[in-house]
Amino acid sequence: MSSLHALTIERPDHAATPDRASHLDQVPQVADRLAQHFATTAALRDAEGGCPKAQRDELRASGLLALSIPVELGGLDGSWRDVLDVVRQFARVDSSIAHLYAFHHLMLATVTLYGQPEQWRPWLAHTARHDWFWGNALNPRDQRARCSPASGGWLLSGPKSFCSGALDSEMLVVSGECEGQLMVAAVPTSRSGIHIRQDWDNMGQRQTDSGSVQFDRLRIEDGEVLREPGPLSTPRSCLRSLVSQLILVNIYVGIAQGAFEAARRYTREEARPWPGAGVERMADDPYVLAHFGDFHVGLDGAVLLADRAGMGLVAALERGEALTSEERGQLAIHIATAKVAAARSGLDLCNRLFEVTGARSTHAALGLDRYWRNLRTHTLHDPIDHKVRELGLWALQGRLPEPGFYA
Amino acid sequence: MSSLHALTIERPDHAATPDRASHLDQVPQVADRLAQHFATTAALRDAEGGCPKAQRDELRASGLLALSIPVELGGLDGSWRDVLDVVRQFARVDSSIAHLYAFHHLMLATVTLYGQPEQWRPWLAHTARHDWFWGNALNPRDQRARCSPASGGWLLSGPKSFCSGALDSEMLVVSGECEGQLMVAAVPTSRSGIHIRQDWDNMGQRQTDSGSVQFDRLRIEDGEVLREPGPLSTPRSCLRSLVSQLILVNIYVGIAQGAFEAARRYTREEARPWPGAGVERMADDPYVLAHFGDFHVGLDGAVLLADRAGMGLVAALERGEALTSEERGQLAIHIATAKVAAARSGLDLCNRLFEVTGARSTHAALGLDRYWRNLRTHTLHDPIDHKVRELGLWALQGRLPEPGFYA
Amino acid sequence: MSSLHALTIERPDHAATPDRASHLDQVPQVADRLAQHFATTAALRDAEGGCPKAQRDELRASGLLALSIPVELGGLDGSWRDVLDVVRQFARVDSSIAHLYAFHHLMLATVTLYGQPEQWRPWLAHTARHDWFWGNALNPRDQRARCSPASGGWLLSGPKSFCSGALDSEMLVVSGECEGQLMVAAVPTSRSGIHIRQDWDNMGQRQTDSGSVQFDRLRIEDGEVLREPGPLSTPRSCLRSLVSQLILVNIYVGIAQGAFEAARRYTREEARPWPGAGVERMADDPYVLAHFGDFHVGLDGAVLLADRAGMGLVAALERGEALTSEERGQLAIHIATAKVAAARSGLDLCNRLFEVTGARSTHAALGLDRYWRNLRTHTLHDPIDHKVRELGLWALQGRLPEPGFYA
Amino acid sequence: MSSLHALTIERPDHAATPDRASHLDQVPQVADRLAQHFATTAALRDAEGGCPKAQRDELRASGLLALSIPVELGGLDGSWRDVLDVVRQFARVDSSIAHLYAFHHLMLATVTLYGQPEQWRPWLAHTARHDWFWGNALNPRDQRARCSPASGGWLLSGPKSFCSGALDSEMLVVSGECEGQLMVAAVPTSRSGIHIRQDWDNMGQRQTDSGSVQFDRLRIEDGEVLREPGPLSTPRSCLRSLVSQLILVNIYVGIAQGAFEAARRYTREEARPWPGAGVERMADDPYVLAHFGDFHVGLDGAVLLADRAGMGLVAALERGEALTSEERGQLAIHIATAKVAAARSGLDLCNRLFEVTGARSTHAALGLDRYWRNLRTHTLHDPIDHKVRELGLWALQGRLPEPGFYA
Repeated sequence: MSSLHALTIERPDHAATPDRASHLDQVPQVADRLAQHFATTAALRDAEGGCPKAQRDELRASGLLALSIPVELGGLDGSWRDVLDVVRQFARVDSSIAHLYAFHHLMLATVTLYGQPEQWRPWLAHTARHDWFWGNALNPRDQRARCSPASGGWLLSGPKSFCSGALDSEMLVVSGECEGQLMVAAVPTSRSGIHIRQDWDNMGQRQTDSGSVQFDRLRIEDGEVLREPGPLSTPRSCLRSLVSQLILVNIYVGIAQGAFEAARRYTREEARPWPGAGVERMADDPYVLAHFGDFHVGLDGAVLLADRAGMGLVAALERGEALTSEERGQLAIHIATAKVAAARSGLDLCNRLFEVTGARSTHAALGLDRYWRNLRTHTLHDPIDHKVRELGLWALQGRLPEPGFYA
Repeated sequence: MSSLHALTIERPDHAATPDRASHLDQVPQVADRLAQHFATTAALRDAEGGCPKAQRDELRASGLLALSIPVELGGLDGSWRDVLDVVRQFARVDSSIAHLYAFHHLMLATVTLYGQPEQWRPWLAHTARHDWFWGNALNPRDQRARCSPASGGWLLSGPKSFCSGALDSEMLVVSGECEGQLMVAAVPTSRSGIHIRQDWDNMGQRQTDSGSVQFDRLRIEDGEVLREPGPLSTPRSCLRSLVSQLILVNIYVGIAQGAFEAARRYTREEARPWPGAGVERMADDPYVLAHFGDFHVGLDGAVLLADRAGMGLVAALERGEALTSEERGQLAIHIATAKVAAARSGLDLCNRLFEVTGARSTHAALGLDRYWRNLRTHTLHDPIDHKVRELGLWALQGRLPEPGFYA
Repeated sequence: MSSLHALTIERPDHAATPDRASHLDQVPQVADRLAQHFATTAALRDAEGGCPKAQRDELRASGLLALSIPVELGGLDGSWRDVLDVVRQFARVDSSIAHLYAFHHLMLATVTLYGQPEQWRPWLAHTARHDWFWGNALNPRDQRARCSPASGGWLLSGPKSFCSGALDSEMLVVSGECEGQLMVAAVPTSRSGIHIRQDWDNMGQRQTDSGSVQFDRLRIEDGEVLREPGPLSTPRSCLRSLVSQLILVNIYVGIAQGAFEAARRYTREEARPWPGAGVERMADDPYVLAHFGDFHVGLDGAVLLADRAGMGLVAALERGEALTSEERGQLAIHIATAKVAAARSGLDLCNRLFEVTGARSTHAALGLDRYWRNLRTHTLHDPIDHKVRELGLWALQGRLPEPGFYA
Repeated sequence: MSSLHALTIERPDHAATPDRASHLDQVPQVADRLAQHFATTAALRDAEGGCPKAQRDELRASGLLALSIPVELGGLDGSWRDVLDVVRQFARVDSSIAHLYAFHHLMLATVTLYGQPEQWRPWLAHTARHDWFWGNALNPRDQRARCSPASGGWLLSGPKSFCSGALDSEMLVVSGECEGQLMVAAVPTSRSGIHIRQDWDNMGQRQTDSGSVQFDRLRIEDGEVLREPGPLSTPRSCLRSLVSQLILVNIYVGIAQGAFEAARRYTREEARPWPGAGVERMADDPYVLAHFGDFHVGLDGAVLLADRAGMGLVAALERGEALTSEERGQLAIHIATAKVAAARSGLDLCNRLFEVTGARSTHAALGLDRYWRNLRTHTLHDPIDHKVRELGLWALQGRLPEPGFYA
């Protein structure tokens, strides 16, 4: 583990006076070192699929799992801009890791937005102290898992799909149909009644462990249920879906930036000019220049839109319960705009980059197709077409998106 | 003129202590009132073409011609962000007026960036005091006009094309080939030897008077020549072309915003749903919503890119002669990015808006085609393809654009 | 009229043995001469708008109005492929004329498809003999005109919009709501009760006289009503809308071909290379070549699709009443496919051609924007989005389009 | 082998009177059965990569390797339209197999177009009799392999890349630099001095064995060299590159058709509608219908262009040595047009199909990404950008493509 030493943040001594700035400052550097480290094996691990156990442990050891946790609970006190910056940094080299890392923080946001401080304060403190990784099993579109009351709590049974990060997690956010309503709760992953199936084998995002979980009379205590304010209640509670959507945006942006950088490097260092082009270097071919110009325009616009949305999210979170539906709706529009732009420009880039790198760049060892496979897979999380429709409703009719699990 | 009263800014009493903020604050409101006023005749004047003499006089009377002039010279002390905001505001309703107004300020920037304070201070003071309108006759691609030395000055003869705003101007920035170099100078438009031809009759930007000027032994005094630092010399001097390019960006954005607003209004108020669509209002047709969503995404990205570039220009101008080539080059990239994005998304919008407004919206009185004609014409100022190539050189090879009259 | 002599076809002497081939052979040449003749004034007449009376008379004199009329009725016995070829030829230089000419033949097809031979034989014979021009006043989406019974016939009152070619016509196909059904009839345009308003002033297709007609107790005889088989009845009767749609396709293709040819000529003969491009001729700029390559690909595909549909229409018409719904539906799909491809590739070309011709090509006298204005206007006839949906229903679900006035 | 019985063509008894039609008629059916058979393992074999030995043997057993061989040499006497039909059929389910099969026939065409009948007649006769598979090792862009004279022949040494189908072949067409010229020859693959490396491991076309071959003093007899007329000599000889390009076109079309069919099936049978869409079946979502409409339009145009080019190739081959450069050039334009259209519409479809199939369709076992990976890989064979430029040179300047190995 000595090589990982350099990847680790000096975290606040929990007993001592917190000094937020000094530790937060190290985050970009630590994230960058980790990203470079992940990059060396990213193509290989993409081919293999499965659980990135070693990388998950390196994330644990780095201290970055505490990034969004308040300093008084032993965390690094980072804002969601800090978290999203790290997500984007990871996504440039490995969007599976980026997804697992982001969803960990999304789960922390879920318990703070849906639950009460007396619930989530101990969870976050333990997470910071023990480098817990959180996973998710709450896909709201899959309504097969159902709750039934049991003395002082509930029993949850049934399957749940798309449970990114459930495997190898310490805590799990779960959901189930409960008397006609969606119940969301946080439980230790090790509790009996949770069966995590290693059945994720998809064309992209191959190391996100987004497979299924089977609940078998999983006992949930009343105090573990996130009921107050609960999902989709106050405008602030409804920020949870926006955090989720903005994570997607930043992963899309990161993938596109990584693809751009890979295309740039290959074109400069490896690609051979087309004989008929009359240039000595591929990098001087006028059509290659035009592609890179296009890539830049698409990417730069997406980055600005994503950054504006990130600043908006931080501001909205700071508003707390004072946040209005209107403010929340405006943020939803900014995030949706960034999402559509990032998805489209990114898919274009990941598909078109081969025009500039050429036939030899299809070699499997390079893994240049993984950018497209990862982005293509992830941009299906919820349909872009209906996101565009949502934007149309606003642009044409002035209607803000109705809060839901995807808007 | 009484109806214009409301359009006029209370300008600083030149003798009194200047109070910048109080007058600058009125600018958006005055510009908005003027814009609404221009809008009522815009479609009609587009059909007629020719010189918008009345509107030029209203601009004179409004005080807005002094917007970019320092308060100590009697101006409103607005920044270029203020100027560009007004340009965009005008472009939403009448991009010819926007162009004339913007080029007036570009000429003021030209003399301050290319010349010495002792030259331009009196010109700007007179401009503020007498509401002068500046025009341009310096198209550098037209190299037919030539200078020859005359005692204490020069004689300029020959034609110049694309002289936007020369007609009905008080001052003119002219250029000519002078011993192998481009000489730029500022002269009163009324001076003998300047023949402004009213020969602009083009498919778009029809009231920009962008016709030709014939010089016939025009006398230019040495003190009128902008020689120090002159064109394309210091990084700061080279900002002039960037001001020009950023004006284009904001006109493109404004045209697109105007087209969007017109499409939105028509779709909501006039358009009839397609029988087969199964909806009661055109505004509920899923394909119409998708178009508006697309329009929004394109437009919003272009606005952010344009705004970033605007802030960059203000910062670069504040750097003065300390501005480095690298800083100037980075700004050039930001402006070029915004230009390509604004041109493309705008053309798409102006072409596609008819899909949502339908067959009846082609009525000539509505003039909905003028958005496309104006934008199509203006986006040919210099080729988008080569702007993209410039961005490609930077994105791929890290090369900053070589300063020139179009970059 | 002597200059028109060369434009005139030697028509069959009605008393003599018909010799179809000898006259039909002359059609392409005569149409070509007429097209060249129309071209010389096309840009000017586009600017003026109004009725192309002289050109309509030249069409009358040319004999081409009898092209689709059987030889036994004195016509040239041309197939619809012949008609569509001439339509496309005209559309290359003047899509208003093309529209008027095509709709004349559409009206002839309307009476033969909707009515009985004893009705249409005399009409067609008179048309061939007297060079009648037919116009239309049957826009089915405008349901304001209504019929009421009168002894031995009907009285029609109310307005009708989009009546292309009604002005200066000898015969008119009209429609009105009649006891809950659409009644279609053919009447002499000169009959009292028909008021043709010269109120067409639109951004494109400016000489199609597609304004409104006011009926004021227009008397319609029973024998003038096209009741057997009537509209939207047998598969063969339902070909009428397909003829209409295929006319649009060929006008789109013709406009795009004309725009292509104009762009090609200007680029080769007039356009100046961009200084930074490092080429001596605009025609050697790599980006200009790429645009032309793209134009060619789009246009060539549209032509093949249009030609296949044209052959299909001829075959379907030859099937007569034996034509099945399935066969008619397949043809509808071929026509819709061609329509979408022609509209999209054409709009792209007409918008993008300016990238290759440059700023100076926006001069009004050239009228290069008329290709876009004409195509943009005409492609709104019925929404492309819903045509694509129709194709989607077929491609995905195997559902053939339900016959209607637009499918 | 009994299951393969149904896949086998009854081939002409070589001693008996040839009866071309009876055997050729069976080809579509046999190819269809083989295609269905290949389909069952296509996704699995794509994941595995490597040599499709079993499928190659099934092709041998089927008799289809003799499809393009004249009946008097024991073949099925199929035209290149017949060959391309089978190629497209295979490409729908497995584009690697389609490539191997097509390149086998390309090699046969190579020897007949570059060599003399006395050379290729025995080769083709043996191929028909013994079901030989031909492979290629003649990539002209890789100029590392070089020849030196040896008594009565040559010695070839050095590496060659992109040698599709060399593995498991009976005959090999090889090339090398020979005194400044490209020498092409046909040799038995088993000859000593040929080392086929199993080093193809790429992101697409994974079972084409397009790895490298190492020549080590490979002996080539004079009679094996294809010198008269040789490569790039007469117009007819230059058809060889067009055959190669047209094979690519048909593989692209086939991949796109396969992707379309897979998307259609999944959307109808598996995809779940988006909750916000308000429809009961994914196949009724208006945006899904629009995607399918778009797919259809793109695909249908590409098919027509490909079919026209196929008919043109057959006609050109029938012209024999009478073929002119002009005729060959026109065919090259038709093929290039089809190639650009097929590549673009195909890539769009293979990328976009996931919008209609949704997140769950990314499951690896479905292998829906292989359409994109295969097409993306294969469309890099030679750059589309420069193909478009070639079309631009023709469209704008009337210049026909200069014959070469890629045009």
